This record gives sequence, C-alpha cells and structure tokens, in this order.
Amino acid sequence: MRKMVLSLLVDNTSGVLSRVAGLFSRRGYNIDSLSVGVTEDPKYSRMTVAVSGDDRILSQIEKQLLKLEDVKSISQLKDGESVCRELLLVKIKANVEQRQQIISLADCFRAKVVDVSMESVMVEITGNVSKISAFIALLDGFEIDEMVRTGLTGLIRGNYVD
Amino acid sequence: MRKMVLSLLVDNTSGVLSRVAGLFSRRGYNIDSLSVGVTEDPKYSRMTVAVSGDDRILSQIEKQLLKLEDVKSISQLKDGESVCRELLLVKIKANVEQRQQIISLADCFRAKVVDVSMESVMVEITGNVSKISAFIALLDGFEIDEMVRTGLTGLIRGNYVD
Repeated sequence: MRKMVLSLLVDNTSGVLSRVAGLFSRRGYNIDSLSVGVTEDPKYSRMTVAVSGDDRILSQIEKQLLKLEDVKSISQLKDGESVCRELLLVKIKANVEQRQQIISLADCFRAKVVDVSMESVMVEITGNVSKISAFIALLDGFEIDEMVRTGLTGLIRGNYVD
Repeated sequence: MRKMVLSLLVDNTSGVLSRVAGLFSRRGYNIDSLSVGVTEDPKYSRMTVAVSGDDRILSQIEKQLLKLEDVKSISQLKDGESVCRELLLVKIKANVEQRQQIISLADCFRAKVVDVSMESVMVEITGNVSKISAFIALLDGFEIDEMVRTGLTGLIRGNYVD
C-alpha cells in the first residue's frame, strides 16, 4: 500500500465532482481526503485527492481520471518536489488548567488559538500530514469535542515544474 | 442569492462523496467549495460544503442531504457563531525585486513563504474568505503561476453548541 496525492485541474461545473467521486466509488478505490476550490481562472477548479493502494491501482486511477472529459490535467504531488498542506480545526474540552496546557502545546506547533469558551479551546493548525498527526497524538490526554480537516492540498515547487 | 456553509458528519465509506456530489449535480445546485477529511472517530468523515442559492434552494439542500443514509448530522456554520477557515497556496512569478515585495505582503497578512526559486515564490495563507480574497486582490500586479484552495472548513464556537 502506497499513498499518492494527485492534483487535478478540472472544469468548474456542477457535475465534475460527482463524476470524479463516482469513478472512485464504482471501482472501490479509497479516497483518504479530497478538497476542491476555485483557481486563478474561474473556468477551472483544482481538486486535490489523496489516495492509497498498490502500484497497479494507483496507475489505474491516474489513467481512468484522464479519460474523464472534465479533467484537464493531472500532476502527482511527490514528497520533496511539492509543498503539501492541510488545515485542521480542533475543539478540545478544557477547564482553566487544561486550557493553559493546550495553549502551550499550540505555541510549540505555531498553531493558533481561534476560540476560547469556559469549557473548550479551539485550535487552528496547518502543516503536512506528519505535523498534523503529531499534534493530534499529543492531544491524547484531552477530550476532543470536534475535529475537522480540510484534506491535503498542494502545489509543485518552483524548481520542479514539468 | 445567499451563501451557506454546511458541516456534514457522514459515514467514512467510498460511496458517500459520490452520493452527496450526485445530489448536488442532479439538481443543479452549485457547490462553491467542498472539503472532506477524517474526524476524531475513523468511522466518520466530516464534509464542509459551501453553497449559494436563494432561501428556497438552501432549505431544499439541507432537507435532501438529511435524507441520505450516510449523512448522520448537519449543522449550519453561521457567521459569528462559528470559526470558518480556508487554506490557500499560491505560486507567484517573481524576479529578485518582486520577491521582496511579495515577502513583505505575506508578512502583513501573517502568511508563510513556503518555497522560493529563482523565478517564483510560494505563499501559504489561512483565514476566512474575506482575508483570503483581500490577499489575492493585492497580488493583482503580479503574475499568478498556480493557485490552490482547500475550500472552507469550520466548527461551531464553544459558546454556541446546539
């Protein structure tokens, strides 16, 4: 099992997400995360899909996606050659003492405290998958109330353009 | 036309994204952005969908989504009651002089410079939609090479829990 992150430039139409998601679900390919948003050109959206599978499946996925009419181009975001980031928002149950501990942890990770109530603290953190996972692992002693991740997004570095 | 941000707790299965996206595309509802990632419980994913439409369409969307078996709960992320964030990565063409200007702009927005090459600078910025849009507007004099956004994600603030 290998992980792969694909960056797809697609037409900005209401059906494109359904067709891409349908391709994955019909074939039983597992999506680890997906994010989609507009680009510098409103005609196109950029979709970032993180998938896992063996080499055969991963190369199949790329070929099948390229067959879709809405998909204009695909690049693989490889470690080192690209910058991949994810955003996490997490709301943690906290009394006054725990609040201080969480704020200190957030500082270490250059995360931002974005909301504080009498019973909870909300933290925003961005980074690659391993940084986000390390932060979540450190929250083990606390009770996580709610958590949401954007899924990976990324671009190829300036020195590695096709 | 009004904008609405929905946070959906859904089953973590390979078909759920296809069913949610299919609902939007069949009915011609327009998705502004969508992000999906795992939650604190691996059985569930959290999907954040930004949509726009008139009041009738928006209330229809909520009702239709709740009919899907995979959708466990829906909350609306309203301004003030919730924290909504998006992550943007943008690669800007830049010579040495432009590079300095872009780094200064990034500083003002507390954005991070994540890659520099001889011809480009890549900046990572997080914030609500208006902050991200303001930053993009300021890049008007520069040539944007590539840009990718995660789409909105968000959580309800501690004081406004249902």
